[in-house]
Amino acid sequence: MNAPLDPAVASQAAQLERVLPALRKVLPNHALLWHDEETRPYECDGLTAYRQRPMAVALPETEAQVQGVLRACHALGVPVVARGAGTGLSGGAMPHREGVTLSLAKFNRIKSIDPASRTAVVECGVRNLAISEAAAAYGLYYAPDPSSQIACTIGGNVAENSGGVHCLKYGLTLHNVLKVRGFTADGEPVTFGSDALDTSGFDLMGVLVGSEGMLAVTTEVTVKLVPKPQLARCIMASFDDLRKAGDAVAAVIAAGIIPAGLEMMDKPMTAAVEDFVHAGYDLQAEAILLCESDGTPEEVEEEIGRMSEVLRGAGATAIAVSRDEAERLRFWSGRKNAFPASGRISPDYMCMDSTIPRKRLADILLAIQDMEKKYGLRCANVFHAGDGNLHPLILFDANDPDQLHRCELFGADILETSVAMGGTVTGEHGVGVEKLNSMCVQFAPEEREQMLGIKRAFDARGLLNPGKVIPTLQRCAEYGKLLVRGNRLPHPDLPRF
Amino acid sequence: MNAPLDPAVASQAAQLERVLPALRKVLPNHALLWHDEETRPYECDGLTAYRQRPMAVALPETEAQVQGVLRACHALGVPVVARGAGTGLSGGAMPHREGVTLSLAKFNRIKSIDPASRTAVVECGVRNLAISEAAAAYGLYYAPDPSSQIACTIGGNVAENSGGVHCLKYGLTLHNVLKVRGFTADGEPVTFGSDALDTSGFDLMGVLVGSEGMLAVTTEVTVKLVPKPQLARCIMASFDDLRKAGDAVAAVIAAGIIPAGLEMMDKPMTAAVEDFVHAGYDLQAEAILLCESDGTPEEVEEEIGRMSEVLRGAGATAIAVSRDEAERLRFWSGRKNAFPASGRISPDYMCMDSTIPRKRLADILLAIQDMEKKYGLRCANVFHAGDGNLHPLILFDANDPDQLHRCELFGADILETSVAMGGTVTGEHGVGVEKLNSMCVQFAPEEREQMLGIKRAFDARGLLNPGKVIPTLQRCAEYGKLLVRGNRLPHPDLPRF
Repeated sequence: MNAPLDPAVASQAAQLERVLPALRKVLPNHALLWHDEETRPYECDGLTAYRQRPMAVALPETEAQVQGVLRACHALGVPVVARGAGTGLSGGAMPHREGVTLSLAKFNRIKSIDPASRTAVVECGVRNLAISEAAAAYGLYYAPDPSSQIACTIGGNVAENSGGVHCLKYGLTLHNVLKVRGFTADGEPVTFGSDALDTSGFDLMGVLVGSEGMLAVTTEVTVKLVPKPQLARCIMASFDDLRKAGDAVAAVIAAGIIPAGLEMMDKPMTAAVEDFVHAGYDLQAEAILLCESDGTPEEVEEEIGRMSEVLRGAGATAIAVSRDEAERLRFWSGRKNAFPASGRISPDYMCMDSTIPRKRLADILLAIQDMEKKYGLRCANVFHAGDGNLHPLILFDANDPDQLHRCELFGADILETSVAMGGTVTGEHGVGVEKLNSMCVQFAPEEREQMLGIKRAFDARGLLNPGKVIPTLQRCAEYGKLLVRGNRLPHPDLPRF
Repeated sequence: MNAPLDPAVASQAAQLERVLPALRKVLPNHALLWHDEETRPYECDGLTAYRQRPMAVALPETEAQVQGVLRACHALGVPVVARGAGTGLSGGAMPHREGVTLSLAKFNRIKSIDPASRTAVVECGVRNLAISEAAAAYGLYYAPDPSSQIACTIGGNVAENSGGVHCLKYGLTLHNVLKVRGFTADGEPVTFGSDALDTSGFDLMGVLVGSEGMLAVTTEVTVKLVPKPQLARCIMASFDDLRKAGDAVAAVIAAGIIPAGLEMMDKPMTAAVEDFVHAGYDLQAEAILLCESDGTPEEVEEEIGRMSEVLRGAGATAIAVSRDEAERLRFWSGRKNAFPASGRISPDYMCMDSTIPRKRLADILLAIQDMEKKYGLRCANVFHAGDGNLHPLILFDANDPDQLHRCELFGADILETSVAMGGTVTGEHGVGVEKLNSMCVQFAPEEREQMLGIKRAFDARGLLNPGKVIPTLQRCAEYGKLLVRGNRLPHPDLPRF
């Protein structure tokens, strides 16, 4: 006699039995996985703290198969979670226990590149960097550059409205996409945006980009390409004081300069990465800024000059300007390797992702220093400083449940203090499952209800990526009680529940 | 004994009797108009072909009064049409016969300007140009510049996602707004966006901007400011062939240049404006291009040089570069006065506003030439060529019903041919009531249903600006029959009804 099944496992098995025949009608055998060992690799994305084995994984190869899977799941009321490369950091692609994970990995063709209109039409599973590699033949590239760009897909970028170090000057995914084709929850083909630069009626593409797979499944994207700048040079500036460094960022922007990149690292972060990559960072500095200029040689020279002057005026204690491309890449090597480097100084880290108005940079850094004492954990900071997007890395040991708990409280405190400073709980990683609670703090019930209304407008049965992004009223009510009861009181500037 | 009342007038009067007591509770006497002679000035906006006297006009002075009007109207099921300066060109502010026109003209205070973060907080009724005038003290300005910028308000700009000649480089209203405060249909206060550069959850501000007053009433806007360029210079280039001129636009962009402005006028247009403003336009040219560069003197010199080279390579027959600011303004004077100048060569004109992919510029111009013969009417063309946004001015005499009818057919033909070329039915003027039919051609029923779903998410009772932007299924069915039956067949590339 067998041991009694876990009820969760039993309900997943029952659901599979109900759905499998319909899926087998639309997918060949090799494109449908449901055995434990086959589906295990899909149990999480880049947010590895939360895991769930999907009921099944579909690997369609054609748009007709995508449509078939969606129609079958819609008819049977089965949740569908679309997945690109699985590099997301907020759990947006975390599977549903009784749902199908729809992997779009096989949609990896670049369909066309048009250098005259400076656009490319690519399938959703094409890697971000692959677009730039293909466009290089025409002197063009795709500007948004998430740190995961070697692996992440354009479909995932659309879902998360991904950014990167060059988005201050060149914009987020939303600003670099013209048209998105895909399917609604019930398998209807849809097109958002157009080949023209403007749109009519409500901006459906605007709401689709960044909707974290909850409104439609993307299969094809028309992206804008931009010319490769003739030259790029980077300034590395040291500061002996966090507030001066934060104010220097505001001063650069206030001087009318939009650098190609404007990044900040604090002392714990530079110490961690210097050991790892030997970028030549100033280890005495409380913070360093990396400021990049790109364009024609004349433009770059002029802008580097003005930026250096502003940084000196803001109190930089040392300034170095990259002399050649190798040195520029060395300056960036530390920034680009900040996450893996943190792995060398701590068993685990949690990467947060909030945004604050630029002028509050120093305030949030000092607040995070206070939180380090309050929660008894260290935090290393790396920022897209130019657009006020923080990536604090909270260092902890996941094997110690108390440290994990303190880390979660610390992270929520950063997010909610960012909101109190006029910011938001996510910059570019999305809400996913990670930041659901903090959405309760940022948005009033009416605002969350408007988001749910948009969800219903696209997906009345709530089958696309359910349970992500928008917290339920009940969840927010419970979180509110926790905040009031718990050891962490919400920031005094925040509205009370 | 009185003559029997027109039923429409009677129903308006009955509605007024029902609503007036509630409105008088929230507004002082001088802020509420309902007599015929008082409400007459509100019967249309810039689209003067359609007129409707509103039931009443509310002129609130405080946010509490706005909230009071919305709550009262929501409780009684009364439509509300928000209105800024009434300069819109698609009838977006056309009154509802049994509704309240909510004039926000008194919300005209600039609340703060922060040069460090380069933002301004302004009330919704502040004029577009007034923002730049106030920011000039800090060397800053607000970039989007509709031709009506001396009169139009920022609230109206948000509703229409307005553009202007500088939007190619600096973006539309959406790209220059950080945060919008206002009220929902039932009088709840709402905030869209934040003081930070990123957002969380669905992009509610993205869908609010351009929603033509159908989702919420805007009362306050936080805009981005940009530094005034040190220098601007303008190239005027002549072409002896429309196709060469259209291809020259694509060539400038393909060369990696984003001009501060890139505008095109055809021969009938330059002839009309030259008489009016004496800008020195080449009257022999089939088309002229105006290409502006702004930035530091070094940047401008370099870019003017590259643009001149590309334009010569594309076949320009003459090139002039403005030598000083007076000459630059003279070059632009014709473009800026294109609409009033048309009034001198024709009793009436209808200004269309569609968008096509840049590379189809020559194709649409040649198609419009064919349509001139087909409909027996002349058309003068002025374009935001850089972003493919057309403004054909169809010349007609509104006193001749047959000319008006042919003009409407001509206009719809331009819009729908633009869609067939991969474009959209509006660039920056909005759909309003003017382009409702053509929305049937651009969007599939499922896509229109998604827009209606978004409308319901914000305004379940459909009280904010009803009847605009999204055509009903029935209207589209009837328009489809007309297209098939009528003397104008839809473009062969369009899907059939």
